[in-house]
Amino acid sequence: MSKLLQDTVGELSKLPGIGRRTALRLAMHILRMEPDSVAEMTRSIDRFRNQIKHCAHCNNLSDEEVCPICADRERDHTTICVVEQVADVLSIENTHQYKGLYHVLGGVISPMQGIAPSDLKIDLLCDRLAQGGIREVILAISTSVEGETTLFYLMNRLRQYPGVKITSIARGIGFGDELEYVDELTITHALMNRREVE
Amino acid sequence: MSKLLQDTVGELSKLPGIGRRTALRLAMHILRMEPDSVAEMTRSIDRFRNQIKHCAHCNNLSDEEVCPICADRERDHTTICVVEQVADVLSIENTHQYKGLYHVLGGVISPMQGIAPSDLKIDLLCDRLAQGGIREVILAISTSVEGETTLFYLMNRLRQYPGVKITSIARGIGFGDELEYVDELTITHALMNRREVE
Repeated sequence: MSKLLQDTVGELSKLPGIGRRTALRLAMHILRMEPDSVAEMTRSIDRFRNQIKHCAHCNNLSDEEVCPICADRERDHTTICVVEQVADVLSIENTHQYKGLYHVLGGVISPMQGIAPSDLKIDLLCDRLAQGGIREVILAISTSVEGETTLFYLMNRLRQYPGVKITSIARGIGFGDELEYVDELTITHALMNRREVE
Repeated sequence: MSKLLQDTVGELSKLPGIGRRTALRLAMHILRMEPDSVAEMTRSIDRFRNQIKHCAHCNNLSDEEVCPICADRERDHTTICVVEQVADVLSIENTHQYKGLYHVLGGVISPMQGIAPSDLKIDLLCDRLAQGGIREVILAISTSVEGETTLFYLMNRLRQYPGVKITSIARGIGFGDELEYVDELTITHALMNRREVE
């Protein structure tokens, strides 16, 4: 195989979910792209890797020291939604329903993977609460074992800020989910937290 | 969303089979990679796009004017295996059974997609046969409608070289395929071309 092709396939197949066959297909597509488009793509990737910052307040990805959400005076600066990762911010933003701020932990506590509380941006969150002005912290952490561990750890840590209400996003049956295929734990939760129909 | 992230996600999702969600996942992975590894990846892609050549003999991708297969004196220079695309060469090479040369057409005849015989490297193949020294041309073209069209077109064109035997790779039931799931045309072919068990 051509060394240039081999190198590109090798590099692309280091990406998650991309095997050698997919990498080869991508390489063939790249070959059909305009050289300028390819250069634009690789430049974007390099720029992203070298210039991206983490927001000094919420740890979200940002082009500046402070991200556009934290810098937005129109948003509700008394509410913080705590999420595991950057993608979660995008998911919530896409609903256009939430107007508060965020805090990106950068993962969940996982003894198995050697991720301790100190590896997450929990101290930064506590600093924000210590500064005052926060009325509610919404915990939007996944329901995995690691997620639940993180949730309990956070609830303990955040208890030291008495003026702050701690809430967790609702668990239940998703819209469009069929009961037949929903796991028992979710159904149990959904039954226990049933609401009177208004 | 950060503009740097947005640009990278936008560029990555231009690649085939990569939607915005996958692009975001790739971007997050890129962020966790060493800056040097990212630079190596993007450099490989740029180099590949700008420096790759097509072999002057067989049209396979090559770093040089003539590809390593065509330049290899150890290989059988009297046999040419005609394939649609570069990936097919790799598939056949992986068997380590074929020792002849290749010819990469660069596609199949497809009136629907506006691909005429003149868009493929058929003249180049005829030039190779006209130079003499070729004893067999193996047609390893896919069995799609376009593939069959290309096969018939090629058989007609190649008939003008009387000393050259034209063969086609065997069609039949693949190893590991279950009859239950094999299409009728393949089964019909496999029945018609049945062989006496030795």
